Amino acid sequence: MKENIIRKSIELFDEKGFIETSIQDIVGNIGVTKGTFYYYFNSKQELLRDIHLSYLQELLGEQQIILEDKDKNYIDKLYGIIYLLIKKIKSHGPNARILFREMRHLNQSNMDQIKKKRKEFRNNFQLMIEEGVQVGEFNNNVRSDILTIGILSIANRSYYWYNSDGEIGEKELVDLYLELILNGIKA
Amino acid sequence: MKENIIRKSIELFDEKGFIETSIQDIVGNIGVTKGTFYYYFNSKQELLRDIHLSYLQELLGEQQIILEDKDKNYIDKLYGIIYLLIKKIKSHGPNARILFREMRHLNQSNMDQIKKKRKEFRNNFQLMIEEGVQVGEFNNNVRSDILTIGILSIANRSYYWYNSDGEIGEKELVDLYLELILNGIKA
Repeated sequence: MKENIIRKSIELFDEKGFIETSIQDIVGNIGVTKGTFYYYFNSKQELLRDIHLSYLQELLGEQQIILEDKDKNYIDKLYGIIYLLIKKIKSHGPNARILFREMRHLNQSNMDQIKKKRKEFRNNFQLMIEEGVQVGEFNNNVRSDILTIGILSIANRSYYWYNSDGEIGEKELVDLYLELILNGIKA
Repeated sequence: MKENIIRKSIELFDEKGFIETSIQDIVGNIGVTKGTFYYYFNSKQELLRDIHLSYLQELLGEQQIILEDKDKNYIDKLYGIIYLLIKKIKSHGPNARILFREMRHLNQSNMDQIKKKRKEFRNNFQLMIEEGVQVGEFNNNVRSDILTIGILSIANRSYYWYNSDGEIGEKELVDLYLELILNGIKA
């Protein structure tokens, strides 16, 4: 039931907007009462927070597996994390887009919890870049913080335009991104 | 007066949201009547469209000057366009962020006008990349369309985190981005 509420909420928030979707809209659409909603969530805002926190938790878990993989060098790890983000577009695209659009409706405490997780993902990425520089896989002439933001911008922006059912497959897209990130475009 | 209305609207849309800001809020805040608003705009939606269209028109004009500059090679042109986008964050940051968040409130016709201008900017950029490949300044092993989206993602995402009054100056940021885009990070 919790999963039903979450799935329908994402759909409605995506279509109508967070403010414009009432708890009644959500429960009415899945044929249950408001009591059922309040059994799982204290408010619509907590639902929005939980949707995103569980997604971030999932991402952090999968990122950790990639980072701890002893068989991967740093280029492999970079590839793995970009692929992780692109692969999730299909299942979590609306989730990520809604959060980005509606996050100003979260109060400070809820927002801080999300920001903390996002920062954790970004910091892990930056540390990976720095370790890759130390072992000589990556250039040491760039700021790892700006590089991290730049690379994650490319992957995260894909949530707004990329369709994995279209002409370009997920792996092909990641290959194209990696070619840009690793080798640049200068002839 | 039109400029006053636009400036105050951007401020209110940014703070409260597009739906939550009424025309009365806008005119009340600058001490004029609704009649004044309707003298310049047919609706709140048209105002949102016009705010963004005029910004895109400005960007396209400045992009054209860079692209037609006979003294610039393609690397210079690439630099010029990224710098153009970063430089505008200070004056047009809220404008761009509001459009992105609120564009679902535009009807199809208004949305199409904006999409057309955005596409024009993107196409000009892609053509520049392709010409740069032809003259041998850029590598020819990447898809120019994906490359264009990737590079513009880095610049456009900066509207959400970069503060030109902070530690990193605009030119320094563009230099860091260009280093990534031109040479990549592989050692």
